Amino acid sequence: MKQLKVELGDKSYPIYIGENLLQQSELVIPFVKGKQVLIVTNTTVAPLYLEQTKKIFADFEVQEIILKDGEQYKTLDTVNQIWTKLLESHFDRTCTLVALGGGVVGDMTGFAAASYQRGVNFIQIPTTLLSQVDSSVGGKTGVNHSLAKNMIGAFYQPKCVLIDTNTLKTLANREFSAGMAEVIKYGLIDDLNFFEFLESRIDNIIKQEQKYITEIIYRSCQSKAKIVAEDEFESGKRALLNLGHTFGHAIENALGYGIYLHGEAVAVGMLMAAHLSNLDKDGIDRIKNLLIKANLPTTINQKTTEKELRQTMLIDKKNIDNNIHFILLKSIGYAFITSDYNDNELSEILNQFIEPL
Amino acid sequence: MKQLKVELGDKSYPIYIGENLLQQSELVIPFVKGKQVLIVTNTTVAPLYLEQTKKIFADFEVQEIILKDGEQYKTLDTVNQIWTKLLESHFDRTCTLVALGGGVVGDMTGFAAASYQRGVNFIQIPTTLLSQVDSSVGGKTGVNHSLAKNMIGAFYQPKCVLIDTNTLKTLANREFSAGMAEVIKYGLIDDLNFFEFLESRIDNIIKQEQKYITEIIYRSCQSKAKIVAEDEFESGKRALLNLGHTFGHAIENALGYGIYLHGEAVAVGMLMAAHLSNLDKDGIDRIKNLLIKANLPTTINQKTTEKELRQTMLIDKKNIDNNIHFILLKSIGYAFITSDYNDNELSEILNQFIEPL
Repeated sequence: MKQLKVELGDKSYPIYIGENLLQQSELVIPFVKGKQVLIVTNTTVAPLYLEQTKKIFADFEVQEIILKDGEQYKTLDTVNQIWTKLLESHFDRTCTLVALGGGVVGDMTGFAAASYQRGVNFIQIPTTLLSQVDSSVGGKTGVNHSLAKNMIGAFYQPKCVLIDTNTLKTLANREFSAGMAEVIKYGLIDDLNFFEFLESRIDNIIKQEQKYITEIIYRSCQSKAKIVAEDEFESGKRALLNLGHTFGHAIENALGYGIYLHGEAVAVGMLMAAHLSNLDKDGIDRIKNLLIKANLPTTINQKTTEKELRQTMLIDKKNIDNNIHFILLKSIGYAFITSDYNDNELSEILNQFIEPL
Repeated sequence: MKQLKVELGDKSYPIYIGENLLQQSELVIPFVKGKQVLIVTNTTVAPLYLEQTKKIFADFEVQEIILKDGEQYKTLDTVNQIWTKLLESHFDRTCTLVALGGGVVGDMTGFAAASYQRGVNFIQIPTTLLSQVDSSVGGKTGVNHSLAKNMIGAFYQPKCVLIDTNTLKTLANREFSAGMAEVIKYGLIDDLNFFEFLESRIDNIIKQEQKYITEIIYRSCQSKAKIVAEDEFESGKRALLNLGHTFGHAIENALGYGIYLHGEAVAVGMLMAAHLSNLDKDGIDRIKNLLIKANLPTTINQKTTEKELRQTMLIDKKNIDNNIHFILLKSIGYAFITSDYNDNELSEILNQFIEPL
């Protein structure tokens, strides 16, 4: 087992990474405050890991809520279902919420915990690669609004993150690859060395060799924990973690959620960002090749238009005074935020990435 | 003008109290971060003070949203209207929300600000006595859930509270009295001296003589600011501010919101709490007399039952492990929290306060 700590003063918390951690209740139990535990999961994960997770909390009053699976259910209505369950179960402010699932479950459970009785404990047990390397760490919680993604939420840190790498064995290959987009992101934004490691070991990783899986999760969480500790509320450096996300959100929104997975949209988005950065051909090729080897898309092969993509870019949390802010690359391993870009180039890139059907 | 500070480290903020403060834009402007300002108000307050408030922000990009007036609209749906307005107006994370109105407007605006893009600035301009002496200070924000009051929300502090006592001149007498319930509460929980001041000056106060109005608002805010500074997240002493509120919420919930105003329900609730505290007859009479002189109810003269009242008491944020927690009085000016009470006495008191119709 590997262990990390997110350093946030009295909000600091540990991340445990390893095989069979769902069998080690002693890791999680210290972070349960009262007697009441609500496990929040979804219809895909529940049949696989709910019983195992309930065993961890065998000595507590455990309730469960099984949500529908999918980004399209990441709404206020779904979070309201969690609150209703808590109230119907007479859960008090010493209760603990456990997020068992991917990023959508984690984001909603975190926001439900942040806002139930103005804040109760929560624990992250992420079961997808994407949530293990990204969304479960750092305390960004929330839901989508019908007008834009991730606009409603809170910064609210979990008490502990338990990453059992076994859960990846039941993950669809496509979902695994989607997670790899965020792993590659850490290399791109500030760790050339890690990017090169990924280039050299992508075959072992895609085969899910255990040693490499633990390593990429550990290094991704380490990167994220460092940035979050420096800038919890995203007033500066943390924005770099959004590399490819302005484009990615636009793609998801324009096509409709569920057509491209979040990680897939981010993969295309990172390559778009590399183009807008005017990265040299070699750099762009290296990124594209790594994405392809990770079985990720590098174009939009769905019906959309430049105009559609642009519309959602204008509604983005990074924007200030209606200027689009992008995370761009000086080189592989060096990202920066800017609103200084060439708008004609942006148009060209958007059009260029839309494949003729 | 009087001025106070709520001491909360880097979340500290000023409270300005006085006449004609809505004309003094220089008090508020320093707390606006970006260029975008959304004024949130309701159908009652908008015709009275919206134009004046807009003048304060004349140099900014100002939008407004006018909500329906009433506790029954303190819902997630209404907060969602605020978020929709912000998104439609392309407001970014440097925007500022201004709550212009009573407690309901303040609670919802605060929660909307806490959760929009995971947190933007907000300013409180409370226009009712109740919100001026209580809800606008301390950062409790949120909405009601269909199953229970105030269960969904966040601790989120405003950047500044501007109390223009002129706004009380347009307040209905019944609303003024409802605010007096919370003023009297501060005397009851930890300030015998203030309680005695209220006893001696209740006639001047009810006539709304300016000198006394400023004084009671100042002393109430001072009391609240002190308690909030000691215990922002209500892990201890802050719970005392809920004197009469467990009963009060039960009354509001059992009768349906809008029958008794919040302050009226709290008035009856404080007297119930005094009975459950087994306060001596003299103490109970003093409290009852002061409430009567403030034109507040001291019984429930509506159709309800002990059972109905008890049901909502079981769902209360102060409860731990399904024990009802009450704030009781050792004497006037000395409150404490306890779950140790006589259940038969509770039944007797609930029945005794329901007037036969």
